[in-house]
Amino acid sequence: MSKFWSEAILSLQPYVPGEQPKQGNIIKLNTNENPYPPSPKVVEVLTHFPKERLRLYSDPDSTQLKQTLAQHFHVDYDQVFVGNGSDEVLAHTFMAFFRQPLPLLLPSTTYSFYDVYCDLYQIKTQHVPLTTDYRINLADYAQPNGGIIFANPNAPTGVALPLTDIEALLQENTETVVVVDEAYVDFGAESAVTLVNQYPNLLVIQTLSKSRSLAGMRVGFAIGSPELIAGLERVKNSFNSYPLDMLAIAAASAAIEDQRYFEQTTQQIIADRQWTDEQLTALGFNALPSSTNFIFASHPEISGAELMTHLRSRNILVRHFTKPSIENFLRITIGTRQEMEAMISALKEHPKLA
Amino acid sequence: MSKFWSEAILSLQPYVPGEQPKQGNIIKLNTNENPYPPSPKVVEVLTHFPKERLRLYSDPDSTQLKQTLAQHFHVDYDQVFVGNGSDEVLAHTFMAFFRQPLPLLLPSTTYSFYDVYCDLYQIKTQHVPLTTDYRINLADYAQPNGGIIFANPNAPTGVALPLTDIEALLQENTETVVVVDEAYVDFGAESAVTLVNQYPNLLVIQTLSKSRSLAGMRVGFAIGSPELIAGLERVKNSFNSYPLDMLAIAAASAAIEDQRYFEQTTQQIIADRQWTDEQLTALGFNALPSSTNFIFASHPEISGAELMTHLRSRNILVRHFTKPSIENFLRITIGTRQEMEAMISALKEHPKLA
Repeated sequence: MSKFWSEAILSLQPYVPGEQPKQGNIIKLNTNENPYPPSPKVVEVLTHFPKERLRLYSDPDSTQLKQTLAQHFHVDYDQVFVGNGSDEVLAHTFMAFFRQPLPLLLPSTTYSFYDVYCDLYQIKTQHVPLTTDYRINLADYAQPNGGIIFANPNAPTGVALPLTDIEALLQENTETVVVVDEAYVDFGAESAVTLVNQYPNLLVIQTLSKSRSLAGMRVGFAIGSPELIAGLERVKNSFNSYPLDMLAIAAASAAIEDQRYFEQTTQQIIADRQWTDEQLTALGFNALPSSTNFIFASHPEISGAELMTHLRSRNILVRHFTKPSIENFLRITIGTRQEMEAMISALKEHPKLA
Repeated sequence: MSKFWSEAILSLQPYVPGEQPKQGNIIKLNTNENPYPPSPKVVEVLTHFPKERLRLYSDPDSTQLKQTLAQHFHVDYDQVFVGNGSDEVLAHTFMAFFRQPLPLLLPSTTYSFYDVYCDLYQIKTQHVPLTTDYRINLADYAQPNGGIIFANPNAPTGVALPLTDIEALLQENTETVVVVDEAYVDFGAESAVTLVNQYPNLLVIQTLSKSRSLAGMRVGFAIGSPELIAGLERVKNSFNSYPLDMLAIAAASAAIEDQRYFEQTTQQIIADRQWTDEQLTALGFNALPSSTNFIFASHPEISGAELMTHLRSRNILVRHFTKPSIENFLRITIGTRQEMEAMISALKEHPKLA
């Protein structure tokens, strides 16, 4: 608190990311990072990048990366926007489209940063409850609104919607922007990118932090109609001309191009998620059906907080949210098979799971 | 223009950065980049960075870099804020401190991004004219305000203020935030960082893009009182948890640590600025006294636009602004001695300068 702050800053409740421990010897299953390193082609590009060029500004349009993404997703160049992580892309999205007279509709349980952006930009919200089995029901979103955003698969539940549900909403909701945050889509859900040419109010946001193993490089992107992308560019160019550094542009482009490595690593994670899901179920957990690189699970006899503490005492970090409706759940990132075995073994050391 | 945009987006006039040509064979003196590559220690750190770590999120607090900066500037850790280029630091600064009932005071001619941020965040402004010899007169800023920002040295004029003038303003103006943007300070001006412990409303912003040869890596920072830094952290953590990627944190830390290389390269640029200034003066130019890595100069008989076109036809890029009060000037970045010789030779090919 300070007399020097703008008034709106006083009431901000910033987002709190998952812990990034500085010591080693920890099995880190708390921030949905990929257990596999970036593609060898990314490493090669970064190693051989002519570093004397860093004295120059990076390309303010990130042309190389936008071209790579446009080709990959079979869209035009002017349908692609890139930013410093999908969090920055989301922030600009809220600024560009959601400051409207009517409230933004969003799930009552979803990526908690959405509410923070709304605070920051003073956007009215209306939270739509999940179903009793923790699903988004898009039929509930067919009502007057100043925009709609949801994650698919949703976070932290991991549950995906079928594309037909999203298209049904888009047929109904044509006058405001619908944002589908697909941070986890590559682990088993259907992307709405295939719908952007039919629905000019649809914006799809993805990240290279999860399925492309580049969380430490901070690159996200959006795909939509040229008019939505132009709105995002206006905000970006009024905020920071050069959001991506040269190495981020080069690394991200190489990561998108290495489709084979991407498929190998995502398939391995999906297989290990399946194994983990079976193990958790055998231990009596209720694991929601995941289309992501994490599992959201609760146990009928042991609280989420207790389970988190139990794992932490064995040097295993998982994420626990204190929000009442989900406080009994753990969000467990899918690591390597060995890490998942260690996590399951550690759970079995709990007296009620032995 | 789109019906999907938030209303305030319609009237934005985004900042237009200097051209980043994609072809080679150009002498690029238009965006104030450093002609020398980053420190060899930066290159070494980047080359040997363990790239498999990029699968993990970067440190959201950029601890290593903040510690390095705190040590370098003899301030505490909680007096340092870092961002994705000083442009992002500036954007958060406008959001955090300048949305006030009274208007922000800023020079009528200065870094043109300031007005763009004010548009973006709907901040009222009052522009204070420069003196007839293109100087900032801080006595003119002693009036009711919602904040004060100026660049020192100023851009695009290159003219620096003495620290005593800044301190006199701070003694008078204690209730609102005073931001000194020191993007170019290392080329010959006095930094106000030495005043931050006395004036809790003073925020000093610097960048690694100029004197540290890291424009392509996107790192800027602010130094001020813990309460100002806390305000910036609130905005940053409501916008993007991880603004600096791992390589940016590592590169920037190494750049700050290599004081010897920094001094060598800045001294060389200052010497070549002196040479260029003499040459321009001999050609009849009016060159403002520069404390930066550029010279702002006009010629009494040839328009700025004509001179820019003349140089461009010889593959030399300089910056020209169409704003009426400065449209006769060129902003010429100080490159290598060889580049400055080429620029002077090219000017001499103009019929009126031959």
